[in-house]
Amino acid sequence: MRAVQFSQWKTFPTIEEIERPAPGPGEVLLKVAGAGACHSDVAIFEDFGPEMPAAGLLKPTYTLGHENSGWIEEVGEGVTGIEKGAAYLVYGPIGCGNCDMCSRGQDTYCRNVGSKPYLAMGLGRDGGMAEYLVAPARNLVALGDADPVAAAPLSDAGLTPYHAIKSSMHKLSGGGKTALVIGLGGLGQLAVQMLIAMTGATVIATDQKTDAMERAAARGATTVPGGDGQAAAIRELTGGRGVDAVFDFVGVAPTVKLAMDTVAVLGRVTIVGIAGGAYEWSFFGVPYEAELLSTYWGTIEDLHDVVALYRAGQIEPEVEIYRLDDALEAYRKLAAGELSARAVVAPHGRD
Amino acid sequence: MRAVQFSQWKTFPTIEEIERPAPGPGEVLLKVAGAGACHSDVAIFEDFGPEMPAAGLLKPTYTLGHENSGWIEEVGEGVTGIEKGAAYLVYGPIGCGNCDMCSRGQDTYCRNVGSKPYLAMGLGRDGGMAEYLVAPARNLVALGDADPVAAAPLSDAGLTPYHAIKSSMHKLSGGGKTALVIGLGGLGQLAVQMLIAMTGATVIATDQKTDAMERAAARGATTVPGGDGQAAAIRELTGGRGVDAVFDFVGVAPTVKLAMDTVAVLGRVTIVGIAGGAYEWSFFGVPYEAELLSTYWGTIEDLHDVVALYRAGQIEPEVEIYRLDDALEAYRKLAAGELSARAVVAPHGRD
Amino acid sequence: MRAVQFSQWKTFPTIEEIERPAPGPGEVLLKVAGAGACHSDVAIFEDFGPEMPAAGLLKPTYTLGHENSGWIEEVGEGVTGIEKGAAYLVYGPIGCGNCDMCSRGQDTYCRNVGSKPYLAMGLGRDGGMAEYLVAPARNLVALGDADPVAAAPLSDAGLTPYHAIKSSMHKLSGGGKTALVIGLGGLGQLAVQMLIAMTGATVIATDQKTDAMERAAARGATTVPGGDGQAAAIRELTGGRGVDAVFDFVGVAPTVKLAMDTVAVLGRVTIVGIAGGAYEWSFFGVPYEAELLSTYWGTIEDLHDVVALYRAGQIEPEVEIYRLDDALEAYRKLAAGELSARAVVAPHGRD
Amino acid sequence: MRAVQFSQWKTFPTIEEIERPAPGPGEVLLKVAGAGACHSDVAIFEDFGPEMPAAGLLKPTYTLGHENSGWIEEVGEGVTGIEKGAAYLVYGPIGCGNCDMCSRGQDTYCRNVGSKPYLAMGLGRDGGMAEYLVAPARNLVALGDADPVAAAPLSDAGLTPYHAIKSSMHKLSGGGKTALVIGLGGLGQLAVQMLIAMTGATVIATDQKTDAMERAAARGATTVPGGDGQAAAIRELTGGRGVDAVFDFVGVAPTVKLAMDTVAVLGRVTIVGIAGGAYEWSFFGVPYEAELLSTYWGTIEDLHDVVALYRAGQIEPEVEIYRLDDALEAYRKLAAGELSARAVVAPHGRD
Repeated sequence: MRAVQFSQWKTFPTIEEIERPAPGPGEVLLKVAGAGACHSDVAIFEDFGPEMPAAGLLKPTYTLGHENSGWIEEVGEGVTGIEKGAAYLVYGPIGCGNCDMCSRGQDTYCRNVGSKPYLAMGLGRDGGMAEYLVAPARNLVALGDADPVAAAPLSDAGLTPYHAIKSSMHKLSGGGKTALVIGLGGLGQLAVQMLIAMTGATVIATDQKTDAMERAAARGATTVPGGDGQAAAIRELTGGRGVDAVFDFVGVAPTVKLAMDTVAVLGRVTIVGIAGGAYEWSFFGVPYEAELLSTYWGTIEDLHDVVALYRAGQIEPEVEIYRLDDALEAYRKLAAGELSARAVVAPHGRD
Repeated sequence: MRAVQFSQWKTFPTIEEIERPAPGPGEVLLKVAGAGACHSDVAIFEDFGPEMPAAGLLKPTYTLGHENSGWIEEVGEGVTGIEKGAAYLVYGPIGCGNCDMCSRGQDTYCRNVGSKPYLAMGLGRDGGMAEYLVAPARNLVALGDADPVAAAPLSDAGLTPYHAIKSSMHKLSGGGKTALVIGLGGLGQLAVQMLIAMTGATVIATDQKTDAMERAAARGATTVPGGDGQAAAIRELTGGRGVDAVFDFVGVAPTVKLAMDTVAVLGRVTIVGIAGGAYEWSFFGVPYEAELLSTYWGTIEDLHDVVALYRAGQIEPEVEIYRLDDALEAYRKLAAGELSARAVVAPHGRD
Repeated sequence: MRAVQFSQWKTFPTIEEIERPAPGPGEVLLKVAGAGACHSDVAIFEDFGPEMPAAGLLKPTYTLGHENSGWIEEVGEGVTGIEKGAAYLVYGPIGCGNCDMCSRGQDTYCRNVGSKPYLAMGLGRDGGMAEYLVAPARNLVALGDADPVAAAPLSDAGLTPYHAIKSSMHKLSGGGKTALVIGLGGLGQLAVQMLIAMTGATVIATDQKTDAMERAAARGATTVPGGDGQAAAIRELTGGRGVDAVFDFVGVAPTVKLAMDTVAVLGRVTIVGIAGGAYEWSFFGVPYEAELLSTYWGTIEDLHDVVALYRAGQIEPEVEIYRLDDALEAYRKLAAGELSARAVVAPHGRD
Repeated sequence: MRAVQFSQWKTFPTIEEIERPAPGPGEVLLKVAGAGACHSDVAIFEDFGPEMPAAGLLKPTYTLGHENSGWIEEVGEGVTGIEKGAAYLVYGPIGCGNCDMCSRGQDTYCRNVGSKPYLAMGLGRDGGMAEYLVAPARNLVALGDADPVAAAPLSDAGLTPYHAIKSSMHKLSGGGKTALVIGLGGLGQLAVQMLIAMTGATVIATDQKTDAMERAAARGATTVPGGDGQAAAIRELTGGRGVDAVFDFVGVAPTVKLAMDTVAVLGRVTIVGIAGGAYEWSFFGVPYEAELLSTYWGTIEDLHDVVALYRAGQIEPEVEIYRLDDALEAYRKLAAGELSARAVVAPHGRD
């Protein structure tokens, strides 16, 4: 079968003919419906190298693609309750399976990650940018009759904002709350949709691109452009109190500063974007009890919730579908910043 | 000034001419905008008597009306920051002001209620069914430019469901959740609106009256009529899992049973209606970890949130406006079950 | 190897010579250190029958013992990170592994329990009352150098109260809180120890047996005997406010009533004991917002926490050790109510 | 009566003879039992000036002392339920009394603080370093028969760590948790006592002074000295996982860094000390989902809890008692760093 492989550090992926894998015990073989192309893939093949701390977990060669969906083709030994032909979304991370973190489906924070040979499907172990994918049965979430191709990005671009929002719901429950979404790419747009669907908060959104703000506004967000007075304009929309929960999907120094400049007393700022911008925190420079934290991906349970939102029509990922043969072109456009929606490779077409 | 007074146990109220009161220290005088007529008023003048446990707190004579709004006419000694002429909603309960419950604005559960001469404005102390009302400044919530007449019922018919829902939000946060509202009178309709506004849950609603269900459906609820198979029909809407949070605004034995028959494992059933129906609870008759509890009114902080929802247009109480001279007619209709919306007495007209 | 087997409904177990099992993929073989004898085993072989709703999950023949510990003897295919010879406690329940409940380690509430052939090790599938036990690697919790024999009951008699307490911690956090433990058998004694270790609450305890109360008092509990005025005496210890969190490890009608008669406004009553006593709940008969709920066993993550308490010396199960040859005698005494501590069968002696 | 007055910016306080005040409506007059001397007083009379943002709220002249206790001497108009001669602890902050924050007793975050003439008793308005003190009845917490002199510091040095710990309890509930207290002055020592009393966590403590660590160790803390390898030593005590909840009572750059270097994934760092040290936060420099926040004083409800801990003997403030005539000497020693316990001025002697 064909697969988009990452074969060498700092080297663009290639499409290779490899053997179709077989599911081991507790695993399934999926006929891939969709595999999303993610910015972190670009970082892996462009920027990373053997000197990185996590290099051992991500070292080539393997098939890319950590946001995947598919139809069950074959089930491995000991797998029960999984329907052949049915569509599933795939939770990417694979932890040790035995620690307290993994026991609650938070494989992302596995205590024994250091002794694992990989992080996730598509991150150190073969992922979904191929005709077929092997995944642990535990990592499947049933899609029912919802479109599996458009669903693929939900397992990262949907799960990541969901986890951040779910962890902030105690700040957003009730009347008179406000949320701010900074950065309206794939994750930010889904964050806007989730906040509109799941809370009564006024959702404020900002991005450098006008059309991204327009799409967020069409979903119910109140948009505020960048430039001088942006923090003041946002704060004014909160009646001067500041924002209860800020989600920064960019993470450069100016966006983290904007988040901290607009957050309320007792509010919460979650930095989702991995640009790594620095912020000088000091007691007298921040509102009392405003929490600042990072976040990373989510849990299997979270993904069940994301799929419930998707199946109920409460969220709609914006996608551009590519054939497997065009997967490298999708990555090229992504690296060049030419995409305006999530690129999903659909090896078997849109069904 | 004229006032609707409750003067004797088991006696219908009368309209009396009494002296216009003056605000004491820490109090304000409000020109009443609206005063809602509540079922519990009817219980007080029809059913209650000196033999009741709480009779000392509710004994006549006083002006009825515990859901009130008005414009500031005069402020008492020591009151600052309250704008003359501005519209406020009034939190009814008045506790000792010094215990831990009162310290957090939960005057409803005041530790020293036994040593108080009254429960609330309109419940043992003069309420808002009059031209003017004296209220503690601490009990005011600013309405801004929102209609104060229609707002009046929010301080009970809005606050009570809000408090019940807010206390259940940990069961309703996230994707794939369901809520059930039993009983679609004034409180139930507002509960539906709040659940739609503040959660992403599927909101199921039921009532014996078709038009009440139609109004709930128009707000976004999925309605299920009574009759055989009702519990099964509700459970089916939840994919068989049961309801995450049930709110019973009736509280007779069959509705409590319906609530417990439809709740999910780890769900929550809040009985709001005070019909006092009994339910035989037993370990093997209920889903694991499904919580059963009552509730009563709410906190001042909750009322700030309710007003925020109202000012943002997220909730709209259904009201019928009465002149002060027609207040007794409003109570008569309420007692007879002839109202289809909350009766609000507007002594100074709809402004 | 020898094993204590349940072979026919309403029939006392027998010791049989059966083949030593081999671990399948994802499983391990444990040399059993300890297997606790639980009251529910007695119910299974004395009371249950094919007419029970869950009979399909519990039907004979299989080895009893759902509270187990042991040393790793052999690991199955695909199992990594598990040390041979090391001691582990075993989480008993085994769900489908694929639903949202199982994804967070709450196999007890597996969505697909109906399609499983068993509930847990020792409950429909071979348990630990034998020389060797096969368990999924995911169900292991490392014991380090703590005594594995005495640890065995922790996987049920420790996990069950822990889960109930953990779910009630929001009622017990802070100064001035009170907890009540009704029933001071194995689970109740551990509940007292956990509450003393993990909260600042005044822990009140009651039982019909004086010596059980003395043991609880030695751990720091304030004991109140049964009889007239018991509820009043308990309430007085709370300064008249009522108890913030009640745990009833008996569950007969009088203990559930005691729980509801002593709970505070905004408190919580968890019925742990499965005696099935009925309670007539009604709005005016219970304190406002006092939650009433059942509970059942716990999650894998909870068991990690329980083991942490045990390894830190914060809890000490009271056990009586039996040889495998004496296992039937242990069950006989348990059925006859002659035990004063948890019976643990140690097939390989106390090591 | 005599009073310790702050009369001019950047000027040491003096003892003056002033008129004994009378309680207004809703207020009480207390015969002062104890008034604690706090570091922030020193900042006010040594460092602050009219150029400070909050200068309007703190400008002289007034009596110092914001941690106070006393016996009721006289009650103002409208005050009920307060016993003459009884001992009370005084909550210092006084907000507008009408906003949502004040409604829940969080006067510290009053929405209308900008329109108030002062922050608290002893901070802009006459405090307790005098023979008598006027306080709002709402701000009183009954001490019963507990020593009111030693209690005085609890209203700040007790309330501040309590609020920080209470807000972190979700990170500390359960088995296997760890807490770290940095800085073992008056607040830090009480933090250690509270964590030992209210949680099952391993409490780690550190300070530059050996005797401060010894006192913490005597209360049950595990101490770790400063110097090279401190963060590693702390992390090792957590089994490598990091600390679940860190409380930094110093707040200089190195202690904030120590906090962030030792916190766990999903942990929480609360900076309590107001030294204002800067910390360069960045996504890749901090554990996932570790929250960083400041805190400030507490709520009235919190103070009720603190008093419950004190009355139950679960916390014991370390105090040095001074006569009112020696109050300036107490401040001198405090400013010079010569105190090893909280200085409490007892104008009417101990008892």
